[in-house]
Amino acid sequence: MSKIRIGIIGYGNLGKGVELALKKNEDMDLIAVFTRRDPKSVVLQSSQVPVVHIDAIDDYKDKIDVMILCGGSATDLPEQSPKFAKLFNIVDSFDTHSKVEEHFAAVDKAAREGNKVAAISIGWDPGLFSLNRLLGDSILPDGVSYTFWGKGVSQGHSDAIRRIKGVKNAIQYTIPIEEAIEEVRSGSNPELSAGQKHIRECYVVLEENADQTEVEKAIKTMPNYFADYNTIVHFVSEEELKKNHSAMPHGGFVIRSGQTGNGGNKQIIEFSIKLDSNPEFTASVLVAYARAVYRLNQEGQKGAKTIFDIPVAYTSAKSSEELRRAFL
Amino acid sequence: MSKIRIGIIGYGNLGKGVELALKKNEDMDLIAVFTRRDPKSVVLQSSQVPVVHIDAIDDYKDKIDVMILCGGSATDLPEQSPKFAKLFNIVDSFDTHSKVEEHFAAVDKAAREGNKVAAISIGWDPGLFSLNRLLGDSILPDGVSYTFWGKGVSQGHSDAIRRIKGVKNAIQYTIPIEEAIEEVRSGSNPELSAGQKHIRECYVVLEENADQTEVEKAIKTMPNYFADYNTIVHFVSEEELKKNHSAMPHGGFVIRSGQTGNGGNKQIIEFSIKLDSNPEFTASVLVAYARAVYRLNQEGQKGAKTIFDIPVAYTSAKSSEELRRAFL
Repeated sequence: MSKIRIGIIGYGNLGKGVELALKKNEDMDLIAVFTRRDPKSVVLQSSQVPVVHIDAIDDYKDKIDVMILCGGSATDLPEQSPKFAKLFNIVDSFDTHSKVEEHFAAVDKAAREGNKVAAISIGWDPGLFSLNRLLGDSILPDGVSYTFWGKGVSQGHSDAIRRIKGVKNAIQYTIPIEEAIEEVRSGSNPELSAGQKHIRECYVVLEENADQTEVEKAIKTMPNYFADYNTIVHFVSEEELKKNHSAMPHGGFVIRSGQTGNGGNKQIIEFSIKLDSNPEFTASVLVAYARAVYRLNQEGQKGAKTIFDIPVAYTSAKSSEELRRAFL
Repeated sequence: MSKIRIGIIGYGNLGKGVELALKKNEDMDLIAVFTRRDPKSVVLQSSQVPVVHIDAIDDYKDKIDVMILCGGSATDLPEQSPKFAKLFNIVDSFDTHSKVEEHFAAVDKAAREGNKVAAISIGWDPGLFSLNRLLGDSILPDGVSYTFWGKGVSQGHSDAIRRIKGVKNAIQYTIPIEEAIEEVRSGSNPELSAGQKHIRECYVVLEENADQTEVEKAIKTMPNYFADYNTIVHFVSEEELKKNHSAMPHGGFVIRSGQTGNGGNKQIIEFSIKLDSNPEFTASVLVAYARAVYRLNQEGQKGAKTIFDIPVAYTSAKSSEELRRAFL
């Protein structure tokens, strides 16, 4: 059987994760990595495949079955996903929630024009967490859903600290509050504000001569990002930040707490992840759904899909009979 | 919009659970309950719908969109699912793992002949647990999956005790061993025998003049069922059994522990449920997938499906756009 031919667009942490994930999937081959940088400046971790400038991507139209887009949601994916969905089946991890409809419509139009399948917003949140929020709502309609994130780095919050005058570098961990999780697990359906669900812990490197008290105050009072949370600020050296806070762990919980029957029987469904490497895990989800996208397109489907629309069977290389025997 | 018209076949604990679950789903109507008993002897919990003898089911061919089969896997479903899949879209909770292929083939043939869709083996295990075992395998191919059951009653093990001479009644709880779950969560991928994952706790009512020591020995040495487990036996009165052990809680965990990248980053995916009522929860899953089966058939699909084959979007009454806005 011929392998599924994969291309990677963008070679940051996520692209590197996809490169490594492909090595664990024997039915797939990495054909090329596409970059906006000078291809000579990009050294792959362990693959003997060409690094190609993104302007030459059209040459690969018949050589790649699925492109995995590893750019950011702010500026890369809104441009790239519709552009490349005309030429290739694609998977992206678009995560700007307020712009999902716009993105879906643009990608759907392009993919239909090109007779391709495009899976958008794949990963764990959006992605696996979304799938579990939907399942919880369908199965226990009389219930409440809770999502907790962490412990893990929030890039958005880290960036917000870095923009404060006097800050040289910073890392912010979002930490779920264990007591809140336990309260949800008890089935009591508490009303919890964001600040009652999460702590924000910050590791900050100051510029020389910066005012530590002022910086701490600026962080803790920042609206939306920190003001409504229990925020803990540690000041550390650049060396300590590099040494102790360069890993990319993450995690989280989706809990559905519902009632069934006349007597109010409590029913709890919980999905959680605990990750040593956030980008490597997200990459692993993208790769599984790249397989699904390929198979859907082979069956003649086209257009944009989310994780809600794709039967989980399509993420596997195994036949339906094998799946029933192994996992049912 | 017209409601989805549902029928229930079999009115035991599961059928009662479906009746109650339908009340929480406003897009569905219960049309009739079918029974092999004298219909006059069956009193519904709270529905003003006819109880009909199963021999008259053909009269409902054009009056019911989906039949939810609530019989047992040993003798009811192998006969009923293929028989009724010719006439109706159906959902069943067939759970005899060794006979799934046979069941799937028979139901598939019947459903194709009748242009109907039939979802088999729906519930939580098989069902939601199966879906998570498959997802874990697809996303983290370099990994190990673990399933823990409980704390909950195992009917098979309770029945096995009841067959022992001198036993009047019995309830057996399967209890997952917390230390084993923690070991799995640590990512160490231990090899665990069934007996290293679960304790078996038994509440036994003796016949008059039965030999307690002999009964305890017969339980603890029973091959397959108890011999390989830490088995705890309590002798109680019939009153105590009724009072303290008539509830039907259950639960369980599916954990995928995998590695990604070159450095062996550990990644853990966990799905768990904690149920006050096992039959009411299973019924809630059946109802959500009855909706999916109806929608698939409306689109012109036919044949047997498992939970692997059905996009989760189809379990919801919400539109694709609503799903993206609410859950993505």
